[in-house]
Amino acid sequence: MASSVTPPRGMRDFLPADKRRRDLILDRIRSTYRSFGFDEIETPVAEESDRLHAGLGGDNEKLAFAIMKRGITPEKLAAASEPLELADLGLRFDLTVPLARFYATHRATLPGVFRAIQIAPVWRAERPQKGRYRQFVQCDIDIIGEPGPMAEIELLSATSAVLDGLGLAGTTIRINDRRILVALLSHWGVPVDRFDHALVIVDKLDKVGVDGVVTELASIGVPVDGLAEALGELSGATWESVADADWLDAAAFADLVSLRDALPGARLEFDPTLVRGMGYYTGTIFEVAHPDFGYSLGGGGRYDGMIGRFLGVDVPAAGFSLGFERLVDLVELSGEGSGDGVVLLYDAGAEPAALVRLQHELAAHGTRVRLDRKAKNLKNQLAGLKEQGFESFATVSDSTATAADLSFRSLS
Amino acid sequence: MASSVTPPRGMRDFLPADKRRRDLILDRIRSTYRSFGFDEIETPVAEESDRLHAGLGGDNEKLAFAIMKRGITPEKLAAASEPLELADLGLRFDLTVPLARFYATHRATLPGVFRAIQIAPVWRAERPQKGRYRQFVQCDIDIIGEPGPMAEIELLSATSAVLDGLGLAGTTIRINDRRILVALLSHWGVPVDRFDHALVIVDKLDKVGVDGVVTELASIGVPVDGLAEALGELSGATWESVADADWLDAAAFADLVSLRDALPGARLEFDPTLVRGMGYYTGTIFEVAHPDFGYSLGGGGRYDGMIGRFLGVDVPAAGFSLGFERLVDLVELSGEGSGDGVVLLYDAGAEPAALVRLQHELAAHGTRVRLDRKAKNLKNQLAGLKEQGFESFATVSDSTATAADLSFRSLS
Repeated sequence: MASSVTPPRGMRDFLPADKRRRDLILDRIRSTYRSFGFDEIETPVAEESDRLHAGLGGDNEKLAFAIMKRGITPEKLAAASEPLELADLGLRFDLTVPLARFYATHRATLPGVFRAIQIAPVWRAERPQKGRYRQFVQCDIDIIGEPGPMAEIELLSATSAVLDGLGLAGTTIRINDRRILVALLSHWGVPVDRFDHALVIVDKLDKVGVDGVVTELASIGVPVDGLAEALGELSGATWESVADADWLDAAAFADLVSLRDALPGARLEFDPTLVRGMGYYTGTIFEVAHPDFGYSLGGGGRYDGMIGRFLGVDVPAAGFSLGFERLVDLVELSGEGSGDGVVLLYDAGAEPAALVRLQHELAAHGTRVRLDRKAKNLKNQLAGLKEQGFESFATVSDSTATAADLSFRSLS
Repeated sequence: MASSVTPPRGMRDFLPADKRRRDLILDRIRSTYRSFGFDEIETPVAEESDRLHAGLGGDNEKLAFAIMKRGITPEKLAAASEPLELADLGLRFDLTVPLARFYATHRATLPGVFRAIQIAPVWRAERPQKGRYRQFVQCDIDIIGEPGPMAEIELLSATSAVLDGLGLAGTTIRINDRRILVALLSHWGVPVDRFDHALVIVDKLDKVGVDGVVTELASIGVPVDGLAEALGELSGATWESVADADWLDAAAFADLVSLRDALPGARLEFDPTLVRGMGYYTGTIFEVAHPDFGYSLGGGGRYDGMIGRFLGVDVPAAGFSLGFERLVDLVELSGEGSGDGVVLLYDAGAEPAALVRLQHELAAHGTRVRLDRKAKNLKNQLAGLKEQGFESFATVSDSTATAADLSFRSLS
């Protein structure tokens, strides 16, 4: 067993420095969202298998980790015709399905317009690769119960404050509306029953380019005369360039313009080719782009039909999800690398009661205090303590009665 | 589906007020342990099934939730002779097995004496009952690599600071040593091969009383002449009363006395009947007792043999685990129930850009700000906002240009 002691495939341990850095950044995200009037909630990591596989998670449903029923008898095992029959729960693959379930459970005690923060891990059994993990953290905010644009405005306003607070000033937020996409597909002559498929194809524009998209659209029967040119124009579209286009859903576009005008600080860019993968979006959709990355740092949109799937009554909803694992590497924390805390070095003969007293005295004043027995190689020990993030050290001797008797020296 | 929308059996949602309260208490525990020189780490929620079922988790192993392999073919399903063959991972049932695995994985990069904090959920498929959940949070500290009593001293010192910091001054820490128990069993004439079983029986003293324990010990062949009297005396034992007892392992007892003397603030009580359930303890064991509760709030001890199970080399270790779900109800937070944050009430005709500007302005000064459309029933709305924890509100009108123009009124 000792030969390959690693965490499960695609999952990670976090050592002290990493854990601390992650928690500081998460705390900053949490407190900014809270300052914008959102409230944090928590749901269990597992949901009923039936709920996870109700068709609301798109392709992610296939990636759900299944949790086996307890007490499966040999008879039940033998009778099972497919694996999911042996599972009653699954690890959540996103925070949206659990939120919809949470809202359905607790609606009676929640405010009419509910603003939720969820900062928590999700699990997907994806093939592990660089930057893609099987357990990873998402930071979601959602507003449930607000049908009008104030939901989108609050989501975008708070999220741009989070991005600014993390020093990610280079990010922009691309925005579109599913209604604009639908009008566009109609304009192209895409048959209504091919809309979903066509959206999946347009969504690949970044990856396969204009020619690739045109070829794929042709393969599902879309007339492609002039399509390459149209797509080329769309890729470079701006708020101004599309304003009079004949394919534009003018009402939806006017809504986006009013979002832009309400949010001068949010760096909103109109992108009529933005699709967002999930099938449940019904209106505005948005995505955080960073100039250094080919992928988005997060995104979201309006999903008015989803809550009804659990509640039985439709409730308007919109949300924004930040992918924490993609953000965390981009953030530079101020003061990062500077020390924090002191070390009290003691000899083997030191009086434990005195060490305890000194540590309590310093800790009571808010100082982080590590007790450490003096090693033979002091130089190595001090270098290690500096690397662990301590700032200074003092040696405890028989004559040290209180913290005032300690003389601290810098570890740097 | 809408008929019974609840979280999975035995698992809980946390609504905003509850979530906030829990996080404030967890932050306090975390920061106290950190101030005593411990470092927080994180491991994935899942571990390899083989590691969870390696015999280190005692009865908890049976309660582990199993995660199914992905891509089980009909052939593999049909060939499975028992359910665990279909699982490759499981949710952790404690934080000790993952820590041992973590240490084995990362030993080369960790300090020689490693002081870990783990504050995280664990999962056990127990029959749900009052105060017992299938997902619950544990707060563990462990010291790996320190063979001497300074490990126990640091654990007890930091944990008593945590308990004091949470206002749980009524707690005491019962302490014993496995060596004392072993000597006691020998003294009673328990056959060596019955020690484990006899410890399980003695562990029930609180529940079944002296007579119950004597009856059960008799049933496994322990001579019971005078045993009831001896057990009665043990139950009321104090540091002073046992000092000269003929059954006492004097060396182990002297070690406990030196712990007590080093920790005058920790309220240590000697309890020679304290067993602690887990089989892996090898020396000191301790347990947090509260006068109002028949169960412990946490406990721990020395487990020198465990790390070696993963690493292949024995490394001394000791740990202390607090059961957060039992603590959280006992803690009274200062300032609890007092408001935090302001609400800006607006009419339907309000300018969104102005609302966004005001919210950003106040939030930038660290104020929590909720935007809320004015409801028809203002009295109800204000009562609801007060209940949600807001402190004051102001109405935004057309003439509100900056936050200085707002006039706030208390919600209380």
